[in-house]
Amino acid sequence: MMKTNNSNVTIVGSVALDSIKTPFGEKKESLGGAASYACVAASLFAKPAMIGVVGSDLPKEHMDLFKSKGIDLSGLTVADGKTFRWGGYYEYDMNQAHTTNTELNVFADFKPKLSQEHKNTKFLFLANILPSLQLDVLDQMEGNPFVAMDTMNLWIENNKSEVIKIIKRTNLVLMNDAEARQLCDTPNLVLAAKKILKHGPNAVIIKKGEHGAMFFTDGIYFSAPAYPLEFLRDPTGAGDSFAGGLMGYLAKTNNTRTENIKKAIIYGSAIASFNAEGFGLENLKKITMRDIKKRYKEFENLVKF
Amino acid sequence: MMKTNNSNVTIVGSVALDSIKTPFGEKKESLGGAASYACVAASLFAKPAMIGVVGSDLPKEHMDLFKSKGIDLSGLTVADGKTFRWGGYYEYDMNQAHTTNTELNVFADFKPKLSQEHKNTKFLFLANILPSLQLDVLDQMEGNPFVAMDTMNLWIENNKSEVIKIIKRTNLVLMNDAEARQLCDTPNLVLAAKKILKHGPNAVIIKKGEHGAMFFTDGIYFSAPAYPLEFLRDPTGAGDSFAGGLMGYLAKTNNTRTENIKKAIIYGSAIASFNAEGFGLENLKKITMRDIKKRYKEFENLVKF
Repeated sequence: MMKTNNSNVTIVGSVALDSIKTPFGEKKESLGGAASYACVAASLFAKPAMIGVVGSDLPKEHMDLFKSKGIDLSGLTVADGKTFRWGGYYEYDMNQAHTTNTELNVFADFKPKLSQEHKNTKFLFLANILPSLQLDVLDQMEGNPFVAMDTMNLWIENNKSEVIKIIKRTNLVLMNDAEARQLCDTPNLVLAAKKILKHGPNAVIIKKGEHGAMFFTDGIYFSAPAYPLEFLRDPTGAGDSFAGGLMGYLAKTNNTRTENIKKAIIYGSAIASFNAEGFGLENLKKITMRDIKKRYKEFENLVKF
Repeated sequence: MMKTNNSNVTIVGSVALDSIKTPFGEKKESLGGAASYACVAASLFAKPAMIGVVGSDLPKEHMDLFKSKGIDLSGLTVADGKTFRWGGYYEYDMNQAHTTNTELNVFADFKPKLSQEHKNTKFLFLANILPSLQLDVLDQMEGNPFVAMDTMNLWIENNKSEVIKIIKRTNLVLMNDAEARQLCDTPNLVLAAKKILKHGPNAVIIKKGEHGAMFFTDGIYFSAPAYPLEFLRDPTGAGDSFAGGLMGYLAKTNNTRTENIKKAIIYGSAIASFNAEGFGLENLKKITMRDIKKRYKEFENLVKF
């Protein structure tokens, strides 16, 4: 069912064709990319607008999926050329993605041009993509959005000063444990989070996969558990669907107070856990609010003592 | 102050002289060993009895420490020979202890002979030591104690069938994440816990260091957070002080119901977090019930959403 209201969370990031191999399966050129996972996850709560670029080779079914989820695609450019490709595999322990190839393709010279509506978004998620592109989108903002950002090891290594520039202009920094350690040059995640907060953002979330997430803000620390997954099929997009779900919930409730961010983290975790139980986007496509609410309840019980 | 009541939790394990190097310090031949950490931690709640052996070379101050904590030492043999030695170091990330030397010394031919009181203990903790020794103590039990056990990678590798034999006769299995993965031959800790439960124990706790602990029993899963430690000085004995604190709390409250084990896990986690903030036993020696209760409150806030 199409929603008719305007989008309330704008998400910039990659739309990709992923070739993934895990010990439990292999898929070539299936729909992936941070913006795809984040937008589909956010659509469970809100109306996301996707900012990005795809090539003319992107199968129509993927666009149809986005549309069926009510995602505003007016900021998604279809360019002459090939869609962004990512290839990777996971070893048996599945904690670490090993990248085998990255082809930027149409992302190499993409310059986003935001509509007036997108420039005035109340919630902006800079999903993982080239930092220059995240900055470009940030520079186009005219209102005073609540900004969250994610990044990856490649940009921390090659574009660290840009990554820090973005952090300084962000409300909520999202990073996984390895990225936080790398950025802050410490194995201690508590220290890493404090170092990140010193750059100026209001809050930091460190995503730890099977170990849950850590949330730090203004003297407050919240430890979010991971859902006990017995059958982890494909971790690809777990962080992106977590962030998309979280931002979708914040946009829906239009509330960025600490207590509400904690709830959003649990909703994001619930969605990410479903995502990891399926290959690629297969689970994210089909879960319902009923599934998510049930799992949210389970999260409440996980930590009760 | 000496307590005058009989011991209520019996702990078998090593008393050692540890030579440890971490990025934050180095100590040679300081008091260590699983039973030392576990008994001192348990003494915060209960009156532990220590079953083990030391050499005639153990400095008197260590015995004085045990006595000052009200630990029943009637089951601690002082043998002609050298005390058990362990040497190890931690890299910068401190998640993994690297053993450089292990000298069993007086433990090589130790045969424990339990007193009537110890044979009828209500709580028995088989801390990490040779599985044959854990079995020997288990065989001497005459009552129907609540049994918890711990082990290590060395025994899982070399004495796996004995380890499983002990698990079958245990109520509560304690293991760290690497050991659980090794024993069950799976990277998935949820699957590992389920495999361990299939051997017959009532419950399993998987200790994950900086990521907290997982507790599995009869369809129930509890995720215990880790305390956000900014200054981790020495992780040695964290697992042993966790287990000792947990068993001490269970013995004190004389209650092994699931809800009470969850509380005991948090008390154990609080004590282990203090332990890791100091070198060797230095913090464990001096913390008070007031410190522990304060940190327990903090744990409550860590997971609230």
